[in-house]
Amino acid sequence: MAHALSESLRAAFQGRVIEDRDALAPHLTDYRKRWTGRSIALVQPERTEDVAALVRWCGEHGVSLFPQGGNTGLVGGSVPDDSGHSIILSLARMNAIVDVDPYNNTLTAQGGAVLASVQEAAARAGRLFPLSLGAEGSCTLAGNLSTNAGGIQVLRYGNARDLCLGLEVVLPDGQVWNGLRGLRKDNTGYDLKQLFIGAEGTLGIITAATVKLFPRPAAQMTAFAAVPDAHSAVKLLALAQSCLSASLTAFELISGPAVALVLHHMPGARSPVETQAPYYVLLESSDAENEAHATARFEALMAAAFEDGIVTDAAIASSLAQSAAFWKIRHHLPEAQTADGENVKHDISLPISRIGEFIDAAGAAVQRVLPGARIFVFGHVGDGNLHYNVSAPAGSDAEAYRAMRASEKTISQAIYDVVAGMNGSISAEHGVGQLRVSTVAGYKQPVEMAMMARIKQLFDPKGIFNPGRVVARQ
Amino acid sequence: MAHALSESLRAAFQGRVIEDRDALAPHLTDYRKRWTGRSIALVQPERTEDVAALVRWCGEHGVSLFPQGGNTGLVGGSVPDDSGHSIILSLARMNAIVDVDPYNNTLTAQGGAVLASVQEAAARAGRLFPLSLGAEGSCTLAGNLSTNAGGIQVLRYGNARDLCLGLEVVLPDGQVWNGLRGLRKDNTGYDLKQLFIGAEGTLGIITAATVKLFPRPAAQMTAFAAVPDAHSAVKLLALAQSCLSASLTAFELISGPAVALVLHHMPGARSPVETQAPYYVLLESSDAENEAHATARFEALMAAAFEDGIVTDAAIASSLAQSAAFWKIRHHLPEAQTADGENVKHDISLPISRIGEFIDAAGAAVQRVLPGARIFVFGHVGDGNLHYNVSAPAGSDAEAYRAMRASEKTISQAIYDVVAGMNGSISAEHGVGQLRVSTVAGYKQPVEMAMMARIKQLFDPKGIFNPGRVVARQ
Repeated sequence: MAHALSESLRAAFQGRVIEDRDALAPHLTDYRKRWTGRSIALVQPERTEDVAALVRWCGEHGVSLFPQGGNTGLVGGSVPDDSGHSIILSLARMNAIVDVDPYNNTLTAQGGAVLASVQEAAARAGRLFPLSLGAEGSCTLAGNLSTNAGGIQVLRYGNARDLCLGLEVVLPDGQVWNGLRGLRKDNTGYDLKQLFIGAEGTLGIITAATVKLFPRPAAQMTAFAAVPDAHSAVKLLALAQSCLSASLTAFELISGPAVALVLHHMPGARSPVETQAPYYVLLESSDAENEAHATARFEALMAAAFEDGIVTDAAIASSLAQSAAFWKIRHHLPEAQTADGENVKHDISLPISRIGEFIDAAGAAVQRVLPGARIFVFGHVGDGNLHYNVSAPAGSDAEAYRAMRASEKTISQAIYDVVAGMNGSISAEHGVGQLRVSTVAGYKQPVEMAMMARIKQLFDPKGIFNPGRVVARQ
Repeated sequence: MAHALSESLRAAFQGRVIEDRDALAPHLTDYRKRWTGRSIALVQPERTEDVAALVRWCGEHGVSLFPQGGNTGLVGGSVPDDSGHSIILSLARMNAIVDVDPYNNTLTAQGGAVLASVQEAAARAGRLFPLSLGAEGSCTLAGNLSTNAGGIQVLRYGNARDLCLGLEVVLPDGQVWNGLRGLRKDNTGYDLKQLFIGAEGTLGIITAATVKLFPRPAAQMTAFAAVPDAHSAVKLLALAQSCLSASLTAFELISGPAVALVLHHMPGARSPVETQAPYYVLLESSDAENEAHATARFEALMAAAFEDGIVTDAAIASSLAQSAAFWKIRHHLPEAQTADGENVKHDISLPISRIGEFIDAAGAAVQRVLPGARIFVFGHVGDGNLHYNVSAPAGSDAEAYRAMRASEKTISQAIYDVVAGMNGSISAEHGVGQLRVSTVAGYKQPVEMAMMARIKQLFDPKGIFNPGRVVARQ
């Protein structure tokens, strides 16, 4: 029967079918190697109509379809489940940049286009596509939109959702919706594209998208500031937004212990400022004028912040190399944490005004569950997004690590309860995938979960698109 | 039976019931006096639970519910149909500003809050709520969100949709969804609020919303420039975005005949520039620094534009009074058109890069239908949005006006066909309402219309919320 299925599959569409066990293996396991599934094959259609034909084939044969972009997701949303009665859909052969329109400030690309190639196509036209994240060398545009990716410039340019003007989507019944419009205003009915953005491939396959471009900044400037506490970081954000307005493109908080961890594990690294502080802020501005103007604005901001007592020390990068060194501390954090040992990670968001209060309350809650736990906090505070990671007490032995693993759920729940109490979100940018399906259900109202389930049922009554992700199986 | 219905209605919720014919009359007819409907009563609940109770009552009695904000819409979406078996829902008694959080840059208000009062509450907290449109003194936040309102600063801050972070919604089955989160990042499932924004009250009643605030600009600057053609206006937009980046907050195109019409009908008005040109552009910048900086940036922009030959004359306002005089020309356009006589109005959007080409092609198409027609073009070109209005030939008599009225549909269709051929939208910011239900269906793919109808059916199977608007009756 498996053989007959394969024959039928190959005939169903134009494109490549990968069934070889070794070639298939990297697509069955996620990036963090936490989930491994099984599939009949990975298929790479060549055209939208072929995706549609494949989808119809899946519907007819009751085979699930698991879309996979760069397979860089962190919540197990990009690998198949273990039923084995499934296909992995890759748009690797549908990666064309279809059109760049500099006067409309739009770019249209197929869903399989790698994010970096979209950024580069925009740059060649003298424009900026601002979506930027660690995985940009391998993640795809369709994956970014399906997961509503965030990254480091959300503060200024928004999430992937905010950057999207139009979509082409293959629906679970095999119909193609061409909604590839590059319009800033279009009030002709329900904004259907919003349903597919952030739906993690459970409602439709995004085969192409039209996204917004922006002018390229004339100069970028980086500063690293020591602040006396998290509350001061929030005040510094307000001051920076008032002084720099939309020129403020990144505002990252890093706790003192997190900076110390990087300095310990990264050879040759040194702190940009002499002062040891409980928190640091990494700021970036994108200036429409020039470097001198950007520097003057940053200096004025820091002078005002010193005066207000919300910054105790600051360094402004005087070269691209120095700017890169500042950012390296931020980017090296996950690696330093890995070197330090296991930890329990959280990707949460809060009203920005409550970040200081949250850090105090969550810290106390964690200590109650795991006395002596070390907490490493960093994140995109300009968006209210914290990566809040808990490590075993200093000098822990293997036994202590085992104990931490055993209480992982209790630790997370303690943190999530504080998040929920402050009207925050337990998944800011990483999504739901398979990791958080049941956890999310515990923190949303039944009426909201019911709406989601009914929409899933409406679009995908057979449950063939990424089943068990975002919404639990019916 | 009508009496029994009224008794039952009064008992169904806490709030005011208006049944008096004279008091009801202004709510039955739209702002432009094109549509008049009938209703049992206008009701003004006091709390969200009362809205929910009312909705349940409507469902039980098979009575339609027509939500009405400031009744300032232009497409007949805010008045009841003529069945008479309906209730008008007003949130006039639910107009509180619930919370302003300057550090989170958010404001939460009830749906009946008048837009101007939301702007003022933001200003009192030292922040900007940037949604701004002609009707802001009477339109409501729930109406703005339900219609995804646009206005004059969309170029910088986006439409109402882009300004919304969270909603509280009463669903057609009487359940309340509290989605009032003030988060910039929240990837915990389908972004349900997007369904209700721009749905014109057909899927749910928006009873409260959390919206984004921004820093207030330190200075605003206005310029008025003469350009040799519409293509140059588009080039000027690109240059202005490159020079001013996000400081460019408005970019309005006005055709030469449109400016002449205003100057003719507005006593004491004079053109800001000496040069007579086929097109003019009104630009506004919002500067984070000060007036001197804003002026210097505008002067540099205009110098570069002169050099490129895309601007032939320009004036930069040197006082608030002068800036107001520039804007008055733009704002007086609808009134000048009314004084000139009847005209056929269109609210369309296009890829910005195709605006010049569109104006040429649409002009030719209109002349074929109505030789000698005068065309008045103006609009938010920074968003690709044109108000494209057709008037009878100069010196037309009553007979010619009758002829124009008779061919109104043909004129619109000629224009819409050009719009559709350029992948534009036939309703940019005014919405669908009852005016454009069938027209929109002719310009959207069947798969898209079917998705809309199925979503309406899913949320409102009894068809009680604003029936016949956006989606045709099932």
